[in-house]
Amino acid sequence: DFVVSFKALHDFEMGQVYSGLPEQMRAVAWRLLDDETLADVFDNLDADDDDIGELLQEMPPQKATEILRNMYADNEADVLQNLPSRLVATYLSLMPKAEADEMRKLIDYDDQTAGSLMSTEYLAVTEDLRVVEVMRLVKHQAAEAEAISYVYVLDNQKHLVGVISLRDLLTHPDDMLVSDITNDRIISVKAGDDQQDVAQIVADYNFLSIPVTDDNDLLLGVITVDDIVDVIDEEAVEDYSGLAAVNVSQTDDTPWHSAIKRIPWLIALLLLGMSTATLISSFDGLVKKASILAVFISLITGTAGNAGTQALALAVRRLAVGTDNTAWKNFWSEVLAGLLVGTATGASVFAIVTIWKHNFELGLAVGIAMAIAIMVANLAGYLVPVLIDKLGFDPAVASGPFITTLSDLTSVLIYFNVAQLFISHFIGN
Amino acid sequence: DFVVSFKALHDFEMGQVYSGLPEQMRAVAWRLLDDETLADVFDNLDADDDDIGELLQEMPPQKATEILRNMYADNEADVLQNLPSRLVATYLSLMPKAEADEMRKLIDYDDQTAGSLMSTEYLAVTEDLRVVEVMRLVKHQAAEAEAISYVYVLDNQKHLVGVISLRDLLTHPDDMLVSDITNDRIISVKAGDDQQDVAQIVADYNFLSIPVTDDNDLLLGVITVDDIVDVIDEEAVEDYSGLAAVNVSQTDDTPWHSAIKRIPWLIALLLLGMSTATLISSFDGLVKKASILAVFISLITGTAGNAGTQALALAVRRLAVGTDNTAWKNFWSEVLAGLLVGTATGASVFAIVTIWKHNFELGLAVGIAMAIAIMVANLAGYLVPVLIDKLGFDPAVASGPFITTLSDLTSVLIYFNVAQLFISHFIGN
Ligand SMILES: [Mg+2]
Ligand SMILES: [Mg+2]
Ligand SMILES: [Mg+2]
Ligand SMILES: [Mg+2]
Ligand SMILES: [Mg+2]
Ligand SMILES: [Mg+2]
Ligand SMILES: [Mg+2]
Ligand SMILES: [Mg+2]
Ligand SMILES: [Mg+2]
Ligand SMILES: [Mg+2]
Ligand SMILES: [Mg+2]
Ligand SMILES: [Mg+2]
Ligand SMILES: [Mg+2]
Repeated sequence: DFVVSFKALHDFEMGQVYSGLPEQMRAVAWRLLDDETLADVFDNLDADDDDIGELLQEMPPQKATEILRNMYADNEADVLQNLPSRLVATYLSLMPKAEADEMRKLIDYDDQTAGSLMSTEYLAVTEDLRVVEVMRLVKHQAAEAEAISYVYVLDNQKHLVGVISLRDLLTHPDDMLVSDITNDRIISVKAGDDQQDVAQIVADYNFLSIPVTDDNDLLLGVITVDDIVDVIDEEAVEDYSGLAAVNVSQTDDTPWHSAIKRIPWLIALLLLGMSTATLISSFDGLVKKASILAVFISLITGTAGNAGTQALALAVRRLAVGTDNTAWKNFWSEVLAGLLVGTATGASVFAIVTIWKHNFELGLAVGIAMAIAIMVANLAGYLVPVLIDKLGFDPAVASGPFITTLSDLTSVLIYFNVAQLFISHFIGN
Repeated sequence: DFVVSFKALHDFEMGQVYSGLPEQMRAVAWRLLDDETLADVFDNLDADDDDIGELLQEMPPQKATEILRNMYADNEADVLQNLPSRLVATYLSLMPKAEADEMRKLIDYDDQTAGSLMSTEYLAVTEDLRVVEVMRLVKHQAAEAEAISYVYVLDNQKHLVGVISLRDLLTHPDDMLVSDITNDRIISVKAGDDQQDVAQIVADYNFLSIPVTDDNDLLLGVITVDDIVDVIDEEAVEDYSGLAAVNVSQTDDTPWHSAIKRIPWLIALLLLGMSTATLISSFDGLVKKASILAVFISLITGTAGNAGTQALALAVRRLAVGTDNTAWKNFWSEVLAGLLVGTATGASVFAIVTIWKHNFELGLAVGIAMAIAIMVANLAGYLVPVLIDKLGFDPAVASGPFITTLSDLTSVLIYFNVAQLFISHFIGN
């Protein structure tokens, strides 16, 4: 029947099927399914999705609360974080006080920190046990725990003092003391640590989960690798969105919503772009004298913008990976790279323009302007994210289009000033 | 002593320490360490790094071969793939023939496929065993296997018929038949599947590993989640690099190398940009008549470029996530979104220019040109990656700077044509 075939599904599929059912069928489904199974369903829905609140409200609050309680603590907290506060209060009031208090603590952790990712269903033992005793405990708690690959060793005050891998438990004799197989070189994170730093550690060490402690080394919870997978994707989408000046995380927007999220960026950049227009306008006399100058505006702004975007992307990535160079060393590296890039590109455009327009002085003006514009755009592309990072913000908010629009301004300024210097020469030809 | 304290390190740290030692100290170190430990070291080095070949060549080929043999098969294959073929031949010739043959098969899988990620050290049993027997086998093989979270169930012909989780093994009675806890709703991938699709499945299902089969459902290997973590990062870097027109995967380039990898892109885009310059040049008469036209070139090309970049990023992300809309539905959505974005931005610029220059007709010309230029850039931003994808390439190669440079051309074309229509009106004012 329905229950049997539903339970045969993978947890992820249960989530997909349940949320895809018509409402009347769900009203039957949740009555047939036990709280454990429904918790598996809700553990596998996207907590950021608005629908999850509606799904919970299709049930009486008691039932919804039981499902929440059966969920893993990290997912439970994620769901509660996205519900209206009235509902949260209702559900928490229906929980045992200790549980509600613990949940309030989890909800309080800032988004994108280790605390907001951790779950509290971990396996923990004291160091005086033997392998066989720990295995008995593991077997007993395995159904509940979110991650069973590691067992955490705590002292009497609940300080984290070591980690035992399930692999070691399985491959060592039953009567061995766990202290003999405990790894006391603990790699842990603090609850306030940025999720990206946590993800980097898990990726480097190939952990299946990582413990989270407070400043006194008390074990607060564990973060499992499936959540790290999501973090890496989320951070990548954030960076990618920044570079494009549009949030790409939602892929099934309506055209209307899709437009709504692009327009504010475009208008903001348009206003910045107006400063470039004003600048060109102030050089109207120069353009009137030499209309040929109009020909190279888009070439210079475009190429400098491209160079700036490259420098920006490299800087953002370097900040994300945390390459341990000093800022000064990076700065001079980037200046040097910009000099090389600017010179190579400027030289190319000098050759092309000189040959195309049979005008050496014009080629020289455009080439020099291009070289300088690239160097400036390149440096801006490097400096803007570095400064944003120094100010404590995510450098990825320095968007590519912002850099290109900014470099339009500097490029035009450079171009017309260089042109002014050369104009008496190339206009004569 | 050295050996004891070295072995106390985490595997990742052993890799870092070993590769960071001065060469003379490494010459001592590899003589002191056993093959197993050295295999752990090399399992934790970046196989794409050139240095790994040098580290192996510091030892006699026999020693290096033993280390390779002790590595996990996926890492071993990765290392061999990056070595000069002369060295690969040497090492393979020193292996037992069966092992060398298996390694040749692994090396042959295309990069970025499931086959290139999989390891062959998995746990497998037949279905007629009892829990206690499987646990005995797990304990016996746990030290060798790369992943112990799942045990794969094979029939007599080695077809994959089910999966047992270690969690279920631990929580069910010893004398239970494993067929009773075997999940036969197998989620597996084929060896030729794209790594990004594999990563998506692992992320959705929260698996710790996933089996890889051939077309006859024979089990070929398993992919572990730590490698999926690397895939997600690699694919994200690929997409990010595409959007910026520069490969950002290497963050510690010298300025010289950094410049070398930016310049080809910039020059290629410069040549494309020359077509825009040529186009403007052909409108020289128009610019001579109305030098005010020069003022808005960078505003229109810049804004259209920004809109095109947004559409591109959204399209690439949608293709990566595999949202299951039909291409036609997406196409019309994007056309509609482009209309909205173009109209809103065009209207804004119309108002700004009309007020700024006290010239209604000029504002109208610039606004209309802007609106059309945005719609075209938007559509190009959407279509280029979709077409590249249809042709079977990675849509991420459609770079942001390519789209902006391309849209410079279309924007200028649109702008001067619209201006030509309006010129008799606004020039009179
Ligand atoms: Mg479950
Ligand atoms: Mg709970
Ligand atoms: Mg959370
Ligand atoms: Mg890793
Ligand atoms: Mg979790
Ligand atoms: Mg970030
Ligand atoms: Mg972040
Ligand atoms: Mg091997
Ligand atoms: Mg490989
Ligand atoms: Mg997941
Ligand atoms: Mg591996
Ligand atoms: Mg890709
Ligand atoms: Mg790919």
